[in-house]
Amino acid sequence: MTSDFKATKQLFDLPKGLIYLDGNSLGPLPKAATERMETVLKEEWGKLLITGWNKAGWMEQPKSIGDRIARLIGAEKDHVVVGDTLSIKVFQALAAALNLRPNRRVILSDSGNFPSDLYMAQGLLDLMSEDYDLRIVAPEDLAAQITDEIAVTLITEVDYRTGRRHDMQNLTAKAHGVGALTVWDLAHSAGAIDVELSAAQADFAVGCTYKYLNGGPGAPAFLYVRDDLQPLLTNPIQGWMGQANMFNFSLDYDRPPGLAHFLTGTPPILATLAIEPGVDLLLEAGIDRLRAKSVQQTDYLIALWERELAPLGFTLNTPRAAEARGSHVSLGHEYAWRIDQALIHDMHVLPDFRKPDNIRFGITPLYTSFTDIYAAVMRTKRVITEKLYLNYATENTKVT
Amino acid sequence: MTSDFKATKQLFDLPKGLIYLDGNSLGPLPKAATERMETVLKEEWGKLLITGWNKAGWMEQPKSIGDRIARLIGAEKDHVVVGDTLSIKVFQALAAALNLRPNRRVILSDSGNFPSDLYMAQGLLDLMSEDYDLRIVAPEDLAAQITDEIAVTLITEVDYRTGRRHDMQNLTAKAHGVGALTVWDLAHSAGAIDVELSAAQADFAVGCTYKYLNGGPGAPAFLYVRDDLQPLLTNPIQGWMGQANMFNFSLDYDRPPGLAHFLTGTPPILATLAIEPGVDLLLEAGIDRLRAKSVQQTDYLIALWERELAPLGFTLNTPRAAEARGSHVSLGHEYAWRIDQALIHDMHVLPDFRKPDNIRFGITPLYTSFTDIYAAVMRTKRVITEKLYLNYATENTKVT
Repeated sequence: MTSDFKATKQLFDLPKGLIYLDGNSLGPLPKAATERMETVLKEEWGKLLITGWNKAGWMEQPKSIGDRIARLIGAEKDHVVVGDTLSIKVFQALAAALNLRPNRRVILSDSGNFPSDLYMAQGLLDLMSEDYDLRIVAPEDLAAQITDEIAVTLITEVDYRTGRRHDMQNLTAKAHGVGALTVWDLAHSAGAIDVELSAAQADFAVGCTYKYLNGGPGAPAFLYVRDDLQPLLTNPIQGWMGQANMFNFSLDYDRPPGLAHFLTGTPPILATLAIEPGVDLLLEAGIDRLRAKSVQQTDYLIALWERELAPLGFTLNTPRAAEARGSHVSLGHEYAWRIDQALIHDMHVLPDFRKPDNIRFGITPLYTSFTDIYAAVMRTKRVITEKLYLNYATENTKVT
Repeated sequence: MTSDFKATKQLFDLPKGLIYLDGNSLGPLPKAATERMETVLKEEWGKLLITGWNKAGWMEQPKSIGDRIARLIGAEKDHVVVGDTLSIKVFQALAAALNLRPNRRVILSDSGNFPSDLYMAQGLLDLMSEDYDLRIVAPEDLAAQITDEIAVTLITEVDYRTGRRHDMQNLTAKAHGVGALTVWDLAHSAGAIDVELSAAQADFAVGCTYKYLNGGPGAPAFLYVRDDLQPLLTNPIQGWMGQANMFNFSLDYDRPPGLAHFLTGTPPILATLAIEPGVDLLLEAGIDRLRAKSVQQTDYLIALWERELAPLGFTLNTPRAAEARGSHVSLGHEYAWRIDQALIHDMHVLPDFRKPDNIRFGITPLYTSFTDIYAAVMRTKRVITEKLYLNYATENTKVT
């Protein structure tokens, strides 16, 4: 697969001179998103007022933007809805899965999962009954722990710290082999790697749109549900948008067919509409080409690390094999926090830091160039050789 | 209380010539919201990128906008957080309330409640156990049905159809007298009437920001929690924003003190920040002055109805006493749906319709004038006298 696509860095409003390597936390502002927001404010909300729900198509956006995201994650139409937060989507998916496996009592996850997925699981289980168990194992033990006790697995495909990628196809097959369901968290996958939900026969997936999808700070999340499961599932969050005939105002919940059942309350339209322009940039480039370029760029960063940074005490915290990692590379160092601070404040390089010692370099081929990567590595080297990290205190927990 | 305040119609982008009487469904666009969005896009998201969470104060917005909303609903600082949807906030409040009354098994609500509040309650109870009961009584029977079986009441203060207002002070006192808790839905109250949560000693309240608060389509909701309850409550939706030390990435949920415990996932910043300008317009006018003018204007509309419309078969579906109603007036008619359509399409008047026969005229004193009300009534009269409603088919369920 070729990695050639029209350079799109100029389609973002990126500050001049900054090497932004934190698109895996918050993607930058697509210029088209600014235009879209002007339209929704002045032409839609301003002029159409309440009639915008139909005339501007707001009502359809959770599904229509979902259909676009589907194409980035190996899914088909009518499998993905946008809304709420990733946490709420985890809650919906787990509740539906447990209800479909009433004789099983264990949610299986791993210690490489993003912590708040685990908090959501625990909050749900606290509500339901004390018989349930959230079992958290080491990432490398996951496969062996998928037994017929397990109702559902809750796995984040790409580790937010190290970039280590789980094998979705094999773990899903393993789960199905023992009758378990799967919830995949694609927070660091969607828009970054070649996710193939349909091919893997994944049951549920959740993800966020503000990282590689460039949807804006805190942009709503998405939920994927396999189509043959859709009619079988319950949804504990039976909101106004997720019922069959909302304007009947029936006192009893009336379930709609298909994916609409998983819609919840009235969606935040400004934040929802801002997602589409960023997603469209990825669709235009093509996820296969983006992944191919991401592999080249992460390989390049790792090669530079080996030559320039390993001798200075930097470790590679990310798996070396491209198929075993996502689209960020984490380098460890005894002074990781202080180095990260020096890069940000003295070097016009913006990666981020995750405990215990990960400097995360997010590679986003739409706007990351090979030159950016070279410069970032060489400036990281200067932080050590010129002892710039000494200007910064030891780690604290505030975000950069 | 005087109803004088600086005219603020010019502070909104309202289409010329339109009499907009649906601000109780979706408030219009404040000009300041357009400016705020330009700033958040170009100066914050665009330039600060990930550092916007701290440098632009995004992280604090759910609480700081909550503090502003508090002043509109008779509450103090540190009692209100913004986020998610009203549905999610109902879910959080009910779950917390039930957990605090472990020996009681009944949620009490009434048939005048907004239906999706009931769907959320049912979804929660389906998760928890089959022992629970959602008891729905007629609105006028609520007080008598508050007995010591009740764990929590779930009551919408102002009926979305008729505008009938429940007596918050008395019903809350009644609930507390038998040891029950209260969840008040302020969807049609916040920004419209003189809500006094503190004085009523209300336990929980939820509300939306896209109606009288002018926060934009689907703008996030708010949750009020009485301060002495805050340390006692559980939150089943334990998201990333609602924990003590998010950047510790502990696998176990670590509860923060106070209201922060009720924060959930990462908030949709664009939609959240758009709330503040609309709320500020209300704060500047003052809720007491707004309510005084709303009473004058709804009285005026009712007087005009009596003189001009009652003889043509229109009924007053809203209570006549000002203290027994909110800020909209519903007029019934055999041809209500068709009249509503004629008003919208032929008369440049935009009210809305709610089954079975309510034409809702939302009164929003910030931008509704007495002249608007007079014109709306006289045009409604013309729809009948000139038989304009005959051009429209009978009711369907699509939104206008």
